[in-house]
Amino acid sequence: MSVTLFERHRDVLDRAVTAIRDRGYWSAFSEIPSGKIYGETAAADGLASFQALLGKPFPLADQPATIDWGSSETNPYGTTLGITYPLSDISALISASRLAANGWRKTTVEERTGVCLEILHRLNARSFELAHAVMQTTGQGFVMAFQAGAPHAQDRGLEAVAYAYEEMMRVPQHAAWEKPQGKADPLKLDKTFRLVPRGIGLVIGCSTFPTWNSYGGLFASLATGNAVIVKPHPASVLPLAITVQVARDVLREAGYDPNTVLLAADTADQPITKELAMRPEIGIIDYTGSSAFGDWLEANARHAVVHTEKAGVNWIVIDSTDDLKGMARNIAFSLSLYSGQMCTTPQNIFIPADGITADGTHVAFDQVVGAVKTATDKLLGDPERAVEVLGAIKSEDTVARLESAQASGAVARPSAALGHPKFPDARVHTPLILKTDATDEAAYLTERFGPISLMIATNGTADSLTRAAGSARDHGAITASVYSTDPVVLEAAEAAAMDGGVALSCNLTGGVFVNQSAAYSDFHVSGANPAGNASLTDGAFVTGRFRVVQVRRPAAA
Amino acid sequence: MSVTLFERHRDVLDRAVTAIRDRGYWSAFSEIPSGKIYGETAAADGLASFQALLGKPFPLADQPATIDWGSSETNPYGTTLGITYPLSDISALISASRLAANGWRKTTVEERTGVCLEILHRLNARSFELAHAVMQTTGQGFVMAFQAGAPHAQDRGLEAVAYAYEEMMRVPQHAAWEKPQGKADPLKLDKTFRLVPRGIGLVIGCSTFPTWNSYGGLFASLATGNAVIVKPHPASVLPLAITVQVARDVLREAGYDPNTVLLAADTADQPITKELAMRPEIGIIDYTGSSAFGDWLEANARHAVVHTEKAGVNWIVIDSTDDLKGMARNIAFSLSLYSGQMCTTPQNIFIPADGITADGTHVAFDQVVGAVKTATDKLLGDPERAVEVLGAIKSEDTVARLESAQASGAVARPSAALGHPKFPDARVHTPLILKTDATDEAAYLTERFGPISLMIATNGTADSLTRAAGSARDHGAITASVYSTDPVVLEAAEAAAMDGGVALSCNLTGGVFVNQSAAYSDFHVSGANPAGNASLTDGAFVTGRFRVVQVRRPAAA
Repeated sequence: MSVTLFERHRDVLDRAVTAIRDRGYWSAFSEIPSGKIYGETAAADGLASFQALLGKPFPLADQPATIDWGSSETNPYGTTLGITYPLSDISALISASRLAANGWRKTTVEERTGVCLEILHRLNARSFELAHAVMQTTGQGFVMAFQAGAPHAQDRGLEAVAYAYEEMMRVPQHAAWEKPQGKADPLKLDKTFRLVPRGIGLVIGCSTFPTWNSYGGLFASLATGNAVIVKPHPASVLPLAITVQVARDVLREAGYDPNTVLLAADTADQPITKELAMRPEIGIIDYTGSSAFGDWLEANARHAVVHTEKAGVNWIVIDSTDDLKGMARNIAFSLSLYSGQMCTTPQNIFIPADGITADGTHVAFDQVVGAVKTATDKLLGDPERAVEVLGAIKSEDTVARLESAQASGAVARPSAALGHPKFPDARVHTPLILKTDATDEAAYLTERFGPISLMIATNGTADSLTRAAGSARDHGAITASVYSTDPVVLEAAEAAAMDGGVALSCNLTGGVFVNQSAAYSDFHVSGANPAGNASLTDGAFVTGRFRVVQVRRPAAA
Repeated sequence: MSVTLFERHRDVLDRAVTAIRDRGYWSAFSEIPSGKIYGETAAADGLASFQALLGKPFPLADQPATIDWGSSETNPYGTTLGITYPLSDISALISASRLAANGWRKTTVEERTGVCLEILHRLNARSFELAHAVMQTTGQGFVMAFQAGAPHAQDRGLEAVAYAYEEMMRVPQHAAWEKPQGKADPLKLDKTFRLVPRGIGLVIGCSTFPTWNSYGGLFASLATGNAVIVKPHPASVLPLAITVQVARDVLREAGYDPNTVLLAADTADQPITKELAMRPEIGIIDYTGSSAFGDWLEANARHAVVHTEKAGVNWIVIDSTDDLKGMARNIAFSLSLYSGQMCTTPQNIFIPADGITADGTHVAFDQVVGAVKTATDKLLGDPERAVEVLGAIKSEDTVARLESAQASGAVARPSAALGHPKFPDARVHTPLILKTDATDEAAYLTERFGPISLMIATNGTADSLTRAAGSARDHGAITASVYSTDPVVLEAAEAAAMDGGVALSCNLTGGVFVNQSAAYSDFHVSGANPAGNASLTDGAFVTGRFRVVQVRRPAAA
């Protein structure tokens, strides 16, 4: 059955394997929310499917170990979802997972890969429904929710499957070992190599990118033979509930135990993540979220391979530019997109206090700040367009942080609440830009999640780069960006990025933004600084998820 | 310079890369200590080189940070080596390593690989010298010291280089990323991917296999761009001192900082391993040794990727055989080889209390035990041959353990001290075989390092397999072995081995022994049970040693 699935999707797998070797542009799943691609009724059908879920228990009644139904899911657009999810007896859930794992571990690489590819294929067909689910839980604008929440997330999942497949295929199933013994008969052994899964894979989702950040770990663990328990963030459950539902459907139809993938929902009042993570049956943890909890997992879940994506202080160093307007526009968009709630959003913008050279003339520090402010004002000038870019703010904590930051510092651009034309109770706030001096490290060396950025006056670009590299090394960073017309400075920026272990983008003034990370091409998070220990996706992300156990027998003479 | 080295050794690298994919028999370095292969004067030259080292400071005067010279090296053959080694100021040693690392991280994959291959080539040329060094520190017999200490260790090093090379080559250096934008111009980025080392690699050697167990980690870290500090066991320094000397010579001659590889010797009185391991500059640790210290490293060295090979309770399950004598001979050799001081030596031999079927007839439990005893007596009947098989016992603790075990239990075969014809003060003891009941778990569920094995009476083969699998899962095991003529039992034994995450050998009655692990073919340690978290060598052994940091720039239009 599932070898058929493998054959059905073999072309897309082969293409993905090529893509991760080339790392040029490729995508298996179209990011264009168009009826021409997804079917003329796809948009309406997806919306209807989403709406049909509202106000009811989510259709996962077939999951075992359910002791109650509940939810503390929130919608930053201010409407009520009213969906409840199964709440589980943890021990019973783990027992069901282990039982399923006993079957799943015996499948072949092709069987498992085929199932993963079919799950991704079906998720893609539900992209509009997923887009609404992501939008109405995370607060992303619709287009972003569609792209990042559906096809781009699916691409990250496929990328993980391709890495897992390639790494597993490096281990032959059999070997004939024949050692010469001079004139005597050779020693001969038949060897069999079995891939043994590591244990149950626990995937801990985040509230802002529930699918994009979870699919890598989910599919890498599943493809390598591990059963998976998906623990969504209690405030953003729906996108992962749909994902688990699709996975279980595919597993069941292909003849496997659907409990190979299970949802472990919880509520904000009764969190279960620590208890789950500390269960010895958990062999792998994939986590996206706060540094505090990620550090706790790394320190305490010693029985498991722990992959984390935590937080950092992303930076831009501005040295010089020959396109001040393009630079300002590009930065303004990066700061505004989804209200700075991306782990890739820049926070600290280092600028020489003496100003820079832009378009051939000297431009003062305050003028550079002013250019970004003006570009932001312009980008957000039309409220209808503004809410599409900004989305809504997921957490009340973020709004509180924004308000207290606004009260505390030198404000270059104040944040303002914005009304949403369609959702009157939506939490929409424009970006806050602060000014500070490089010596005030307390102001900028911790993450200020949300639409808060700092324009930091330094003693010059060398000072900027030293501080930027040090901040990445010591406090973590997922993205870095530099603007300079001077090749020597660009080289120094590269050295600073290597030193800080952070991905660098240079002179982005057009339609590419530092926030964006493309599957198959960009390594998301380096694992080389405190912002996380794992990268989407490299070999290290998959190799620890299985082990090789061998059997040797004397070969027939 | 070192691209030349890469080209010079490219054939052997290509062959090694093929070997790790096929996992059939192959070796780059001949295990035959013959003049025809190593040169007619190699044996005499090697002995002379070894003897020239005795009674002097080891020639590593060029190492920085030396504050004293000393040694607590011991020779189980009872003669005095009298070699002293540089003792270092740890902070100064790490500073020198970091400085060297700054240069080493900038080398290309080909440069680093070429240097590694040249080091291995030169180590091979010094195989006779290394054999004497290994023999006179570990207590191994000469042939074993030559094979395991020189060519087989070099093969393990080359295997690690091949894995590292292949994994690094999976990441392209550059990519042209071009994303279509409908009718508009495509978005274009030039991307560069840089491999960034993880930090200083610390290699912690053991006293019994200082080279074989260290070369994997040493060469994997070095090939992936990390500087390496080698911390030998204080009782067995010489083989790794020679190794470091060779590495430094090659680095210097190829134009690199020789401090890219440093020796950090210590003495039993003033151990430095904990202090070294806890330094934040250490990014990778490769450790072989006791479970207690390995567990400590895994729990405490959280800043580093920690690879461990610790201890376990290896098992044999005897169900039935059609070659009782062959089986007994094979087991007797496995128990006797290097006096059971191999991490692969069997300890627990599970046999049905009711006896087994052998050669078509019923054979009682005591007769099975008797057959192994008789085969052991016969193997060791000639003292000159016996000492070659047994070697000498490295640690006085092992002798004490042996004596106390002899006094405590039901002895099936007593251990006896044996005189060595060439080394009158050598510590030679024959194997002790105990009998016990399966319910006496305290007797056999901890490792009894050295020539101590237990014949364990069970309720039948099903009981044997359950206990064996459980012991591996809970207490670790590196090897497992089964004897049965019944395909159903063999299948159950495979399931038990998978369950316990331990490599299984079936029906070994000839010239292959469960203790042996061949580079390029056998995965040594599975990483799937408490006996260790790393495997020699799989993808997971190398992928965590480097990270990818990328740079993106808009492509020229």
